[in-house]
Amino acid sequence: MSNPLDLVVRQAGEWLRGTGPLHEIVISTRVRLARNLRGFAFLSRAEAETRRDIADTVSAAVRRAPLLRDFVHIDVEQLDELDRALLVERHLISRQHAEGVGARRLAFDPTEAAAIMINEEDHLRIQVMRSGLQVEEAWRQIDAIDDAVEEHLDYEFHPQFGYLTACPTNVGTGIRVSVMLHLPALRLTNELEKVGQAARDLKLAVRGLHGEGTEALGDFFQVSNQITLGRSEVEIIDDFRTRVIPRIVEYELAARDALLRTRPHALDDKIWRAVGALRSARLMSSNEAMQYLSHVRMGLHTGRLSVVDLQTLNELFLQIQPAHLQKLHGERLSGEQRSIERAAFIRTRLSSN
Amino acid sequence: MSNPLDLVVRQAGEWLRGTGPLHEIVISTRVRLARNLRGFAFLSRAEAETRRDIADTVSAAVRRAPLLRDFVHIDVEQLDELDRALLVERHLISRQHAEGVGARRLAFDPTEAAAIMINEEDHLRIQVMRSGLQVEEAWRQIDAIDDAVEEHLDYEFHPQFGYLTACPTNVGTGIRVSVMLHLPALRLTNELEKVGQAARDLKLAVRGLHGEGTEALGDFFQVSNQITLGRSEVEIIDDFRTRVIPRIVEYELAARDALLRTRPHALDDKIWRAVGALRSARLMSSNEAMQYLSHVRMGLHTGRLSVVDLQTLNELFLQIQPAHLQKLHGERLSGEQRSIERAAFIRTRLSSN
Repeated sequence: MSNPLDLVVRQAGEWLRGTGPLHEIVISTRVRLARNLRGFAFLSRAEAETRRDIADTVSAAVRRAPLLRDFVHIDVEQLDELDRALLVERHLISRQHAEGVGARRLAFDPTEAAAIMINEEDHLRIQVMRSGLQVEEAWRQIDAIDDAVEEHLDYEFHPQFGYLTACPTNVGTGIRVSVMLHLPALRLTNELEKVGQAARDLKLAVRGLHGEGTEALGDFFQVSNQITLGRSEVEIIDDFRTRVIPRIVEYELAARDALLRTRPHALDDKIWRAVGALRSARLMSSNEAMQYLSHVRMGLHTGRLSVVDLQTLNELFLQIQPAHLQKLHGERLSGEQRSIERAAFIRTRLSSN
Repeated sequence: MSNPLDLVVRQAGEWLRGTGPLHEIVISTRVRLARNLRGFAFLSRAEAETRRDIADTVSAAVRRAPLLRDFVHIDVEQLDELDRALLVERHLISRQHAEGVGARRLAFDPTEAAAIMINEEDHLRIQVMRSGLQVEEAWRQIDAIDDAVEEHLDYEFHPQFGYLTACPTNVGTGIRVSVMLHLPALRLTNELEKVGQAARDLKLAVRGLHGEGTEALGDFFQVSNQITLGRSEVEIIDDFRTRVIPRIVEYELAARDALLRTRPHALDDKIWRAVGALRSARLMSSNEAMQYLSHVRMGLHTGRLSVVDLQTLNELFLQIQPAHLQKLHGERLSGEQRSIERAAFIRTRLSSN
């Protein structure tokens, strides 16, 4: 039986097409919902058998929903470490889900726009990913998926508090909105504090590429809400859509403008040195590659270079990561081998011919 | 009247052809002699008028010597700052000579293999530069020039101490031998201390590219004798020819071998990243360029790349320097302008087409 993951590794998910609104700066919008089944223990208190029952119940509900008939079903528990890492790199599962124990699964749309983690921290974590700033659209889609699943399941819901979740911070709407931003100019001009301020004003958190506890890599930042109780979904979505993200986008555009106006040579130097390093290095870590690709992305979007198309670049961001690299290479690689393969892979994709 | 320096700026001197013995590691051999005229005060005690008399006397002697009939005569006192800096960058005059006051001159062979500074620290500083390790050949040539000049001059010579000089460290033979070495692998493997040890064993000094008081740039080092009294020219020359330089060359070759054997990817990474940076940067300081060119030179000589020929590379080492860059550009440039021009100049010379 062929591994469904062998296919996904060769291309980027639809949400990475880079075509959504404000896509020059907003990479993606993610909305996720936390849900738990009535009549089953929360996972922190669930025995192995209960976990399995929950997984089976949710899987069956997903399979029965006509809207979700194309979903690919993956038994995360049975995956080897490399495949689990691959799913993390694609943002289809969390690190916690990859590293967990016991029955746990993933069901996802082949375009990777929607996914359901089963038995992560909650019984269900539904997510929708979209290119650019599309909070409302993502909300409508996830709401539909949520309804489709609920037709065949009973959620734990409290008339006063709302949806009950494993962690109190998710109680209420159980919604988390995360917007991934590319802010290279704000980093170059040392103005990232503005982003922190804009986020804090609305009680939002700013984090690195892979969410909680991760560092910002290659100038990518995630802005997400921290509070799910006491604010409606519509209010939360509106904060993102009309207030905080447009403000940050404006800051970044202003910073790019300022660089172009006052330090065009320094800007071009950054961008072209990144191209030079990517085209010539023989050893390269994923962090370094991420940083250089970030500068190339800025170069594309400021019109300073056109040596690569956005599609190729977006795929590179995914494919230079350790698990992708090893899947593409077809075998396990040591740290040094990865570094060699990564450099070679990037050179081929960015060759000047 | 055309400036004779407009010509020299466009090419490298013959000693930089990079064809001499052990040229992969030994850039050049320089021998210089310090001489003073009998009957004139040492320069530290000479009035302006005496300085001029000395300069005229020496210039006349050089002009009368048939061996030196092709020498170009330059009145350093009349040169502007940029032209003086140019001569320093070409190793035709010292910084001290460039920055001095009063009557001072330069006479040099158009191939730049031989030069005479008039009124530097001593009345005459004769130098011969040759490609690779050619201490004996350089010695024979400078001895002939010394004799040719002496036919028309009286040198200050003490039957017991030998040639008397302004600084006691030059008394005796007045000879200084300096060998310029390119030691990138020893730097990469952190083994430069071996060079220091080899030099100290024979009471030789190790310095940077432009001699005393300068830092090693781009992995270039000068080894020179410190003692001129109590050792004959032949002994000093033999130390260089048969003892210290071959030993250092062996260390560097061993270090290159070790890198090729144990860390070929790390070596290629260094070399190719240097090419990448040189081909893509939009701003570049001369120190940075020197370091990258050094790695490219190592790449050429270890057979790891062939994107540039040795002649072009050697010319680049000269032409990226501030005064050369401004002469080539045709006008004075600010620091940032130089950085922009340097990057552009290098890109053109190293373009992949």
